[in-house]
Amino acid sequence: MTLFPLYLAICAVPAAAGMLFRPGAWYRGLDKPGWTPPDKLFPVIWAVLYVLMSLAAARVAGQPDNDLALGLWALQITISTLWSAVFFGLHRIRTGAVIIAVLWAAVLATTLAFLRQDMLAALMMTPYLAWGTFALALNISVLRRNPEAMPA
Amino acid sequence: MTLFPLYLAICAVPAAAGMLFRPGAWYRGLDKPGWTPPDKLFPVIWAVLYVLMSLAAARVAGQPDNDLALGLWALQITISTLWSAVFFGLHRIRTGAVIIAVLWAAVLATTLAFLRQDMLAALMMTPYLAWGTFALALNISVLRRNPEAMPA
Repeated sequence: MTLFPLYLAICAVPAAAGMLFRPGAWYRGLDKPGWTPPDKLFPVIWAVLYVLMSLAAARVAGQPDNDLALGLWALQITISTLWSAVFFGLHRIRTGAVIIAVLWAAVLATTLAFLRQDMLAALMMTPYLAWGTFALALNISVLRRNPEAMPA
Repeated sequence: MTLFPLYLAICAVPAAAGMLFRPGAWYRGLDKPGWTPPDKLFPVIWAVLYVLMSLAAARVAGQPDNDLALGLWALQITISTLWSAVFFGLHRIRTGAVIIAVLWAAVLATTLAFLRQDMLAALMMTPYLAWGTFALALNISVLRRNPEAMPA
């Protein structure tokens, strides 16, 4: 029996965080670089990433000696739940950047652990790594452009 | 090799959420029942629960066919990360109560799945179930006593 539905259900939690903590007027008022994606694109990107990371975890769940790899997957999804709340909820741009950096490291560790289990599962995690790199660059750019921005 | 440190590290994420989203003046101003624990007690209780749930997960990690059980553990810890942010960050008391109810169900499912793997691991989850029951009752009581409370 595939555990894909369970892993997708876990991804529904950071998705819910993203819906509860919306960008809003504060985000619109920030100085953002020209390469910032339009707001509407973020849910589309995250939906694709959630499906991929859940398929990857489901593949690894079928493997022996997979507890470290799936534990790292759990770590990264928990950190991911925190970011929207901190950035859009607390307006803490620097803390948000720190969280993305830690998340990126956790996703990298998960991907490497998946590589030891199942090549295809590791490949399915690489768009997430690429997106994390982009998101960190965007968060840092917003931080530099808005030095006066105060936490909520 | 025990995975206890990894599961404890995962628990550090909802712990960080609890530190970033503090009670504050809004919470102090709420009408609360006489059986509300003092603020200082919550971190102590959570520290004990995190150690217990991490020890339980580490025991289950040593078992065969444990992917469903550990996946449910990942689900409950992700939901737990969301509560502080929603209650103390958004001041959404009803949504907070819904989240605790969903969390309680996830902890119950985890405990039952652990029971099939390791009796001691399941026993280690029962204080968490008891605390979840109490926390839900407290959240509902605060909801009833503060019908005018507005979201942030």
